[in-house]
Amino acid sequence: LTPKLTNVETSIFTVMSVLANKHNALNLSQGFPNFKSDQKLIDAVSKAMNSGYNQYAPMAGNLELRQAIAKKFELLYDTSYHPETEITVTAGATQAIFTIISTFIKLGDEVIIFKPAYDCYQPAIELNGGKPIAIGLQAPNYKIDWILVEKSINYNTKMIIINTPHNPSGTVMSKADLLKLQELTNHTDIIVLSDEVYEHIIFDGEQHQSVCLFPQLKERSFITASFGKTFHNTGWKVGYCCAPKELMEAFRNVHQFNVFSVHHPTQKGLADYLTQPNHYLDLSEFYQEKRDTFLKLIKDSKFKFTPSKGTYFQVLDFSEITSEKDLDFAKRLTIEKGIASIPLSVFNDHQHDDKVLRFCFAKTTETLKAAAEILNKI
Amino acid sequence: LTPKLTNVETSIFTVMSVLANKHNALNLSQGFPNFKSDQKLIDAVSKAMNSGYNQYAPMAGNLELRQAIAKKFELLYDTSYHPETEITVTAGATQAIFTIISTFIKLGDEVIIFKPAYDCYQPAIELNGGKPIAIGLQAPNYKIDWILVEKSINYNTKMIIINTPHNPSGTVMSKADLLKLQELTNHTDIIVLSDEVYEHIIFDGEQHQSVCLFPQLKERSFITASFGKTFHNTGWKVGYCCAPKELMEAFRNVHQFNVFSVHHPTQKGLADYLTQPNHYLDLSEFYQEKRDTFLKLIKDSKFKFTPSKGTYFQVLDFSEITSEKDLDFAKRLTIEKGIASIPLSVFNDHQHDDKVLRFCFAKTTETLKAAAEILNKI
Ligand SMILES: CSCCC(=O)C(=O)O
Ligand SMILES: CSCCC(=O)C(=O)O
Repeated sequence: LTPKLTNVETSIFTVMSVLANKHNALNLSQGFPNFKSDQKLIDAVSKAMNSGYNQYAPMAGNLELRQAIAKKFELLYDTSYHPETEITVTAGATQAIFTIISTFIKLGDEVIIFKPAYDCYQPAIELNGGKPIAIGLQAPNYKIDWILVEKSINYNTKMIIINTPHNPSGTVMSKADLLKLQELTNHTDIIVLSDEVYEHIIFDGEQHQSVCLFPQLKERSFITASFGKTFHNTGWKVGYCCAPKELMEAFRNVHQFNVFSVHHPTQKGLADYLTQPNHYLDLSEFYQEKRDTFLKLIKDSKFKFTPSKGTYFQVLDFSEITSEKDLDFAKRLTIEKGIASIPLSVFNDHQHDDKVLRFCFAKTTETLKAAAEILNKI
Repeated sequence: LTPKLTNVETSIFTVMSVLANKHNALNLSQGFPNFKSDQKLIDAVSKAMNSGYNQYAPMAGNLELRQAIAKKFELLYDTSYHPETEITVTAGATQAIFTIISTFIKLGDEVIIFKPAYDCYQPAIELNGGKPIAIGLQAPNYKIDWILVEKSINYNTKMIIINTPHNPSGTVMSKADLLKLQELTNHTDIIVLSDEVYEHIIFDGEQHQSVCLFPQLKERSFITASFGKTFHNTGWKVGYCCAPKELMEAFRNVHQFNVFSVHHPTQKGLADYLTQPNHYLDLSEFYQEKRDTFLKLIKDSKFKFTPSKGTYFQVLDFSEITSEKDLDFAKRLTIEKGIASIPLSVFNDHQHDDKVLRFCFAKTTETLKAAAEILNKI
């Protein structure tokens, strides 16, 4: 009874959330808001259930929802994905990512990822027999070294996974980064998986650099996106992915045998909700205010930081506080001080320890104040 | 850009449902009820949303729901699965099946399946580099030839997938079948995947033969189960799987990177709903009445049949009507006669054509009458 994945452990999000609950700690580890989403959205889902949207959604997703997604791409990025053939609703972005990797990666294929990396990429690659080629990003800027990327590309390179805004670091990729990626992959068979789940949470007036803005990138790319992160209900597990028709066809061939389809009333509720305008546009402002509140409150603490540029995460450098390993420190803070965070080395195979912890600031002002009070005493 | 799965097409359920909608036909193809689930269950899910169950559920599932599932196994099968370590809530049984296969099947592994087989097993096996070893079941009884199974087992056999009550044939496995499977797999490393999504829909006083009733089978088995099929909301996509701790641990290592967790308010709503007694026990009676109504209405038609013994499907033999291929006949019935069904040869790699169509009788009496009226004229 030997499973294929042997070097995998329980994800850090489960580990830290369980520890936080056990010790009654403020949970700023796993990324989720501790406030409610728009009541109108909840009511729209209830209404969909009461109107009978309780049987299988179409495999690719409720069509009205896919049309609403297509409209978003027109509105925000001035580009088009065809709702019938180029957009698929998924059981969260994670399921999209797992399915994309399962669709294309086979024994011996190399996939370039950037570390620290969100924790679901590597096991999905390995489960499919692929080889993750990790390129390190260095604190505090976590900039991609494109010369290293260029050197890493070879005949076996099948996929490159990028993530902007970047979880866990809170950095964003620039237009120059995307142009470089486009240049390196142009005229190759490399598929780009662009994890853009925090696309609507980007600060200080920056523009999100989606792969769909770059035509030769777009034609080889999957974008994965999340409603949970956008509308404050991570537990609904509805996301989607977009790609040119040919790639999407291959994806759906696998998707239909993985989950087949996604919670129908939630899809219909989201579709109805999205007929109202301006749903995405104020999210950056909303979270920038939270970031600023949080950073102002801890500005005199012993933690050092560069303000997050996107996502709802802030990394804090604790190198002046202790020389403990980040995982040990994170656990100790949870157990002894009552605040849970995510140690970054787990996104680096426990190897590279930058002495930083990630805190989720998708929290009420009250929680942010309580968190700051603890952090200021450390 | 070569995907791994090349011999796969759009699933027959999508094909036939799309065709049915296009031609405004009665849709008795894809299996779903056309009536509403209990309003109390819908209200329980709405209440869960309004009470704030909108962030990530625990990876293994809402604990109250897992406890309710454990209670079911005690109540109905007098056996126990530990809610903490042996039960995981999934995004439908299909996602459980895909994940189980992905967890264990690697290049060269053989998996014994029985054909006609539900269509998600084979692609999941092939995607993971495994080799499906198909054993044919013959109409009208679709009995397993255990001598053939015994001959097919060899050193590479990693898994056997069974399905009782059986979709698409509506037959059920007997206690003798399960004892034989137990005997053949005892003292081997073979994992049994037992797809029991129709466990609560079994007719004529028969007992469902779950693998969990046979101790040496249980210890090597995954059971997959479905709330959608039990509570009439297939579009909610919430199911679960059970297995001994060690197997479940391996499963969760993959599950956490596939979907991570499942629609939280639906889990909480189901958990609350399941605190009320007797939810499963009348389902067989409910569907047996529908089966009987349907069969009585078409008893003078040119279709031949053996009454379904479980599931909400009835196969009808059309060999006295036409010598067309079943797929052609099913499409023609949809387009010309206004009734959609599922041709069984698609579950047989389009090879073995028994001249039978599968009809879903999870429909209102009104729909069953309208269907019979059409079928009686053919
Ligand atoms: C799937 S639980 C993790 C949530 C998340 O995206 C994060 O905390 O980074
Ligand atoms: C996943 S859609 C198919 C539904 C079903 O189980 C069936 O019709 O057999």
